[in-house]
Amino acid sequence: MERLTQQMVFLLEIDKLKNVYRQTKVTGEDRHENDAEHSWHLAMMAFILYEHTNEKDVDLLRVIKMVLIHDIVEIDAGDTFAYDEKGYEDKEEREQKAANRIFNLLPEDIANELFDLWEEFETRQTKEAKFAAALDRLNPLLLNYHTGGHTWKKHGVKSDKVLTRNRPIEEGSQALWGYAEELIKTAIKEGLLKE
Amino acid sequence: MERLTQQMVFLLEIDKLKNVYRQTKVTGEDRHENDAEHSWHLAMMAFILYEHTNEKDVDLLRVIKMVLIHDIVEIDAGDTFAYDEKGYEDKEEREQKAANRIFNLLPEDIANELFDLWEEFETRQTKEAKFAAALDRLNPLLLNYHTGGHTWKKHGVKSDKVLTRNRPIEEGSQALWGYAEELIKTAIKEGLLKE
Repeated sequence: MERLTQQMVFLLEIDKLKNVYRQTKVTGEDRHENDAEHSWHLAMMAFILYEHTNEKDVDLLRVIKMVLIHDIVEIDAGDTFAYDEKGYEDKEEREQKAANRIFNLLPEDIANELFDLWEEFETRQTKEAKFAAALDRLNPLLLNYHTGGHTWKKHGVKSDKVLTRNRPIEEGSQALWGYAEELIKTAIKEGLLKE
Repeated sequence: MERLTQQMVFLLEIDKLKNVYRQTKVTGEDRHENDAEHSWHLAMMAFILYEHTNEKDVDLLRVIKMVLIHDIVEIDAGDTFAYDEKGYEDKEEREQKAANRIFNLLPEDIANELFDLWEEFETRQTKEAKFAAALDRLNPLLLNYHTGGHTWKKHGVKSDKVLTRNRPIEEGSQALWGYAEELIKTAIKEGLLKE
């Protein structure tokens, strides 16, 4: 029973991810997106867009596990906005501390699996991590476009920054990068994003 | 490009699942849970609790795909409360219509995969579907307990109904059913749930 108790404590703890809000807004309602629903959306993207990976034989279960857990550290560390340079200074330290506290609620073997998946996602060296990272960038691009450029306008983000931020999509999927480039061009043309 | 466009239309459409609210409340904030974050939580439960399946060699990727998509039909059909007998009368019809509209936004092969997964989840015959269904019941039990029995109190649900509703957990996982039974007993003892 000891293992199951630890697992349930962890599963209750991560309910808090539903209360960590991102800069992005959801479509259809005037409110910010939270990390839990964002993670679900990425997992759905992995499932549906799997055929567009650059490399063959990407392990889809691994990609999905990665996107499901990639933001859990933000329960303690908070969401760091993609274009917040100051916030990025101590992001790694804050998130490592959070991972230590939260992942270690689990039995050691599962905790280690989460540490490995999270590090793999963050370092972006494997084909699975490259695809996961591509989805994590494409998703807010899509939502930003469909909420009238909300985040770009609010923070005065310009197209060169958006292009730089999103270029890693190419490493995971040329097809998705093609789609992203078109979306950015359209956003500029429609006045949602400044050049 | 045709396939990718269809896929992106679907992925944008399902953003609406973030605005479908359930009876259950989240812990830590005074608000109802939405279907998207609920689906994420179930996927995390599948990942973390996988060792507790009754049967060997359960296909974890299939379980996760099932829980990720199981509520998508509620974008059109709405959430039917587990203890709402009237709502269950036309639930199947409403949800089938919704599945036809939403899944068919996708290329046919992927749409068919979603129809299959959804039907498998609903009919609960495979070991994967039994485990997925167990998680879908255990999760609101856990959240209800940790939000002071919110849903039970609001709708005057008594323990016999909760036991009947949750007994299918046993088909997916004896271990989780043992945990659920203890939780229900504790809820009664603490006055969160009436006998």
